[in-house]
Amino acid sequence: MNYQSVIFSKYLGDEQLQQVVSDEAFIKKILLFEIALAKAQSGLGMISKKVAEEINLKVKKVIISPKDLDDGTLQNGIPVITILAIVKEKLSAEGKKYLHFGATSQDALDTAQVLMIKDAVTVIEKKLATLITTFLKLLKRYDETPCMAHTRGQQAIPITFGVKINAWLQPLQRQMQRLTEMKQHLFIIQLGGAAGTLSFYGDKAKKLTDIFAKELQLQSTPQWHTQRDHFCEFTNWLAILTGILGKMGADILVMSQTEINEVIENGEGGGKSSTMPHKNNPVLSEALVALSKLNATLQSQMLQSLVHVNERDATAWILEWNAIPQMIINTGASLNHALTIATKMKVNTQNMKKNVESFLKNTDQK
Amino acid sequence: MNYQSVIFSKYLGDEQLQQVVSDEAFIKKILLFEIALAKAQSGLGMISKKVAEEINLKVKKVIISPKDLDDGTLQNGIPVITILAIVKEKLSAEGKKYLHFGATSQDALDTAQVLMIKDAVTVIEKKLATLITTFLKLLKRYDETPCMAHTRGQQAIPITFGVKINAWLQPLQRQMQRLTEMKQHLFIIQLGGAAGTLSFYGDKAKKLTDIFAKELQLQSTPQWHTQRDHFCEFTNWLAILTGILGKMGADILVMSQTEINEVIENGEGGGKSSTMPHKNNPVLSEALVALSKLNATLQSQMLQSLVHVNERDATAWILEWNAIPQMIINTGASLNHALTIATKMKVNTQNMKKNVESFLKNTDQK
Amino acid sequence: MNYQSVIFSKYLGDEQLQQVVSDEAFIKKILLFEIALAKAQSGLGMISKKVAEEINLKVKKVIISPKDLDDGTLQNGIPVITILAIVKEKLSAEGKKYLHFGATSQDALDTAQVLMIKDAVTVIEKKLATLITTFLKLLKRYDETPCMAHTRGQQAIPITFGVKINAWLQPLQRQMQRLTEMKQHLFIIQLGGAAGTLSFYGDKAKKLTDIFAKELQLQSTPQWHTQRDHFCEFTNWLAILTGILGKMGADILVMSQTEINEVIENGEGGGKSSTMPHKNNPVLSEALVALSKLNATLQSQMLQSLVHVNERDATAWILEWNAIPQMIINTGASLNHALTIATKMKVNTQNMKKNVESFLKNTDQK
Amino acid sequence: MNYQSVIFSKYLGDEQLQQVVSDEAFIKKILLFEIALAKAQSGLGMISKKVAEEINLKVKKVIISPKDLDDGTLQNGIPVITILAIVKEKLSAEGKKYLHFGATSQDALDTAQVLMIKDAVTVIEKKLATLITTFLKLLKRYDETPCMAHTRGQQAIPITFGVKINAWLQPLQRQMQRLTEMKQHLFIIQLGGAAGTLSFYGDKAKKLTDIFAKELQLQSTPQWHTQRDHFCEFTNWLAILTGILGKMGADILVMSQTEINEVIENGEGGGKSSTMPHKNNPVLSEALVALSKLNATLQSQMLQSLVHVNERDATAWILEWNAIPQMIINTGASLNHALTIATKMKVNTQNMKKNVESFLKNTDQK
Repeated sequence: MNYQSVIFSKYLGDEQLQQVVSDEAFIKKILLFEIALAKAQSGLGMISKKVAEEINLKVKKVIISPKDLDDGTLQNGIPVITILAIVKEKLSAEGKKYLHFGATSQDALDTAQVLMIKDAVTVIEKKLATLITTFLKLLKRYDETPCMAHTRGQQAIPITFGVKINAWLQPLQRQMQRLTEMKQHLFIIQLGGAAGTLSFYGDKAKKLTDIFAKELQLQSTPQWHTQRDHFCEFTNWLAILTGILGKMGADILVMSQTEINEVIENGEGGGKSSTMPHKNNPVLSEALVALSKLNATLQSQMLQSLVHVNERDATAWILEWNAIPQMIINTGASLNHALTIATKMKVNTQNMKKNVESFLKNTDQK
Repeated sequence: MNYQSVIFSKYLGDEQLQQVVSDEAFIKKILLFEIALAKAQSGLGMISKKVAEEINLKVKKVIISPKDLDDGTLQNGIPVITILAIVKEKLSAEGKKYLHFGATSQDALDTAQVLMIKDAVTVIEKKLATLITTFLKLLKRYDETPCMAHTRGQQAIPITFGVKINAWLQPLQRQMQRLTEMKQHLFIIQLGGAAGTLSFYGDKAKKLTDIFAKELQLQSTPQWHTQRDHFCEFTNWLAILTGILGKMGADILVMSQTEINEVIENGEGGGKSSTMPHKNNPVLSEALVALSKLNATLQSQMLQSLVHVNERDATAWILEWNAIPQMIINTGASLNHALTIATKMKVNTQNMKKNVESFLKNTDQK
Repeated sequence: MNYQSVIFSKYLGDEQLQQVVSDEAFIKKILLFEIALAKAQSGLGMISKKVAEEINLKVKKVIISPKDLDDGTLQNGIPVITILAIVKEKLSAEGKKYLHFGATSQDALDTAQVLMIKDAVTVIEKKLATLITTFLKLLKRYDETPCMAHTRGQQAIPITFGVKINAWLQPLQRQMQRLTEMKQHLFIIQLGGAAGTLSFYGDKAKKLTDIFAKELQLQSTPQWHTQRDHFCEFTNWLAILTGILGKMGADILVMSQTEINEVIENGEGGGKSSTMPHKNNPVLSEALVALSKLNATLQSQMLQSLVHVNERDATAWILEWNAIPQMIINTGASLNHALTIATKMKVNTQNMKKNVESFLKNTDQK
Repeated sequence: MNYQSVIFSKYLGDEQLQQVVSDEAFIKKILLFEIALAKAQSGLGMISKKVAEEINLKVKKVIISPKDLDDGTLQNGIPVITILAIVKEKLSAEGKKYLHFGATSQDALDTAQVLMIKDAVTVIEKKLATLITTFLKLLKRYDETPCMAHTRGQQAIPITFGVKINAWLQPLQRQMQRLTEMKQHLFIIQLGGAAGTLSFYGDKAKKLTDIFAKELQLQSTPQWHTQRDHFCEFTNWLAILTGILGKMGADILVMSQTEINEVIENGEGGGKSSTMPHKNNPVLSEALVALSKLNATLQSQMLQSLVHVNERDATAWILEWNAIPQMIINTGASLNHALTIATKMKVNTQNMKKNVESFLKNTDQK
């Protein structure tokens, strides 16, 4: 549900994650919801096998473009109603009757959001794993390389470059562990019906929920229409990731300053200037710092979405629609740049040594 | 430099302002900068008339698509260098030499940003003026209509609907006044050269600045590469606008509750539900509240961009690139919805009266 | 390290948690750090038993008032140096030598912060447990009480009051579970020495760390001077708590509106007005909504503290000092008010029923 | 209505502004409101001279401590009702009747807030003027001193230190100008009565408003109970000030790095370390960066207060009570530190020159 600037799609975005959170992907997830619901309902005899099969076949084939939904979304404050209307045009009278049977728009929209998040997590987890592996290699190589520590902007005492690499690596390893824990309650269906009671389904509600969840390879759970803590935990995790990598970016910016010259962000040649041919700008590190601020800011928006009034409240819901895709893309860009830096950076171990020696000489004189 | 979701482009966006801040518009503004610079320089004899004319003709014709710039922007952290490279392919050797003569990428990028803001202000100002006029009509109609005041969620004393309308109108009128003041220092060129000193141009620097500004119908001013207060004033103004309209939205949400029923957001029929045919959801008012939060959040990001370190700092700059287009679009959507509500809302003066009478009866009994 | 307004100390604060995060408590925690370090070091023969005993006895007795530390904190950007100087005045030459032996100010300050957080968690956990119990009682009482659901500001379909109570209770129960998980990595010592390497302690570093941790009943862990993810997880948890209770407050505000009148926040009489004797203002619910916004906002500040540059960086550190105590106090106030409301609210089951009947009648007519 | 940590009162606070926004000052301002209102009303014959005189004499003498108000504020969500109750104990029956005559609590509270802001502006304006003067002196001294520009973290081209000083000075000069404009609409009375209509005062309302404003040396204006744009403009101005000074702090942090060594924040000796005697930490510059983030964050909270629902809404109001005093204190601390740095910093012009020479040599070689 978000598009990024094409110009900045590689510098401040991630094309793969952009696909994951695109309008097109969102429409597909909504349709998946409707198909899975019909299947689950036919399994319980709530609707006929035949109508479920019709829904499955025809919904799979329906082609909906984002542009078909803008007016309907303006009208209804959600795109689901228009999607259903378009789908229904393709269905028989019975198909029309049993599509989205007993569900509410929020069920479809929230489940689609979870499916999108699940896809995003798959991408992000892989990027994160690769980054951790790369940091481990860096650590192996530079664990004992002497360099200066800086505390409060000033040279402190000699340490090793390994200390710095660990400051990026260790919290990422912890966050990988946190992800494992979080997955156990993040990938859940939303199914509550008009006001969250599932009353429509009577005593079959619990069974339907379980089978429906299995169809979508999500976990079964009571509805959480107005309980948005799962999302806020997830986005805080994203913001912690980009925060950790923001620290890495800031460290590289310090070490790559001309006067310190201990690291070159990109040994193959970094950012150029339109006027200064000697420049090799650490533009990825700068992006890491900026992306961390974007996510930090958006998390405050996410936390406000917890105040989801009554049984459905778009003043809160819209905050999520706006923040989640952006935070996912920001995180992807951040992981990409950290990996590029970790792979391509040139470490001037000689200059690190020289700076240590110069420090030892200066403090000795004092 | 921003794209919005197409699905939500009318509910949470504004198509006209989306164009104003699009990748395509941004590229055009960068090209405008280069043409105007060459013209101004030829006027002062810094470059030949001939080369300025070549630049004018060829740059006008060059076609650059956003997709041409993604790799270069990743490489350099800005799109300007790639734009210049593409343009230079079309130019003679002399044209190549004198394009972007003595300027730095930030000059082009910041000036393009200002030109984009100026276009946005034109659109926003017109929407705001229309809204104020519409509120004045509403006020005329309902100034004396009795209704209940609510303080801290509870019925307070009878007032008139005019009091409520004034609470939306008066601050907007003040902000229209603020805009007039702000325009006097917002629409300015950026021209500083590599590190803000214009040293490249020697003693012609001031004259060049003035003529260049006139070319772009902007004000002449010393460079402000690292002085971002103008932008933060502008975006705070946007956030105040959406905040005022957020209050309007929140008021409508209260008054349109089924049990109070004093206002229907859209008398012609508002948001529908996928399960509940009786619903007429005030979805525009909800968007007003949410949009006000988006802008409030983004302003904290903007204010962080003031810490623009050294003579150029993309850790700060990126914050603006991300926030400004979004805040402009949010404001456009907000003004649109406020106008729709002000035009189409149905005021149930009978119910207002009934609620006042019921209050008077109840408090009398106490 | 924070003081709240006395006027608002009960409405927007919590006196017990104010003590926990007070200047006085902070000084005590710093002193505890120094005593425990000396004890642990004497256990390993790094310093003599005698000097450890001297440090223990004299540090326990030293009296330091916050006012003693303001000038030193301005000078050094941290209070620890002045605290050590005051303590040293009481010590023998050897005591002076072995106080804070091999530690850095950040070790003391961060460990004190963790000890403070641990005390805060004890208070908050107890409040949370009581609140959950109280909600369970409420649920038992009102699980089947019919009332109207509202979606997007409009009456939706009849539900029960139990659905609403569950929307407050269930996420709190999840967060209680999250706390259990979080405790396993939150209560950790900080001990790294000047630049995080513990090089000062040579091969005894790991043992010292373990014994020192045991002394303080914290977990042993490698230093995390620049790794601030633990704190950001904790404060997000606080913000999620207040967000959940903000939703409760917002729900009460809707239900307690004069025209709906399904709940009175405080059956014994709520907020009064200076001019309107009939008012019974739901002022605690309002505070719940506001407190949720304070914490949501502060979390964006916390997440920025992850960009902790180099080996120590007060531009990031200060963000924590400012946010953590405030977020703790906000959470305390929020839990208090939620409990008061859950205990004292008057539920007008008759009006709930009446509103359901009126809805059924109206929709039937349509 | 805010207390700061005493330990950090000089490093992250300002004692003078702490007084301005203290509980005690707030109580005094509320009492001033009541006295001025009675005086104005007696001038119009709305209440007798005698009772106005009684109110004047007795209210002036009443002693109210913040601790007297905590329970009442918890009860009513505002302290005004308890203040009035305490005052009334001292008054005759007629005094009781005519105290706060026709006013509402919000009138007193908002006017007190404005009076507090006015006092704060007096202090801040003076600090700002002194800082501008000091920067002008610095500029005179170092305008032509060569040093290196850094763009995107890398040495760019030689500039002068004057360019850097101007980047701090020029936006401050603009903000001084902005203050002059802002003052014309910021220092206003609040007087609206129970629901903002002043209906209580009949046709004397306008006259009363004018005379009352004159009593308090504020401007007369229609009530703005739910129109909070003035405050959001003011706090954005504060956040812009601290943002500008945050940039100064960040610049000093870069230049004072051991390896660059162009500036020492405090030539008389800066922050010390508990373990490293050679350190001279630029702790004030760090505070400048951090304080800018505190204010940037709080402005997002302020902007949310614009959504002030109905005719009085503490869910919004509380956001202001929390943010305004903090932002004022943050700004005071920031101005103090900037002045200390501007006064005491040691500029190593020799090192600046050396860095320029080294750059010229290196780029020449390329």
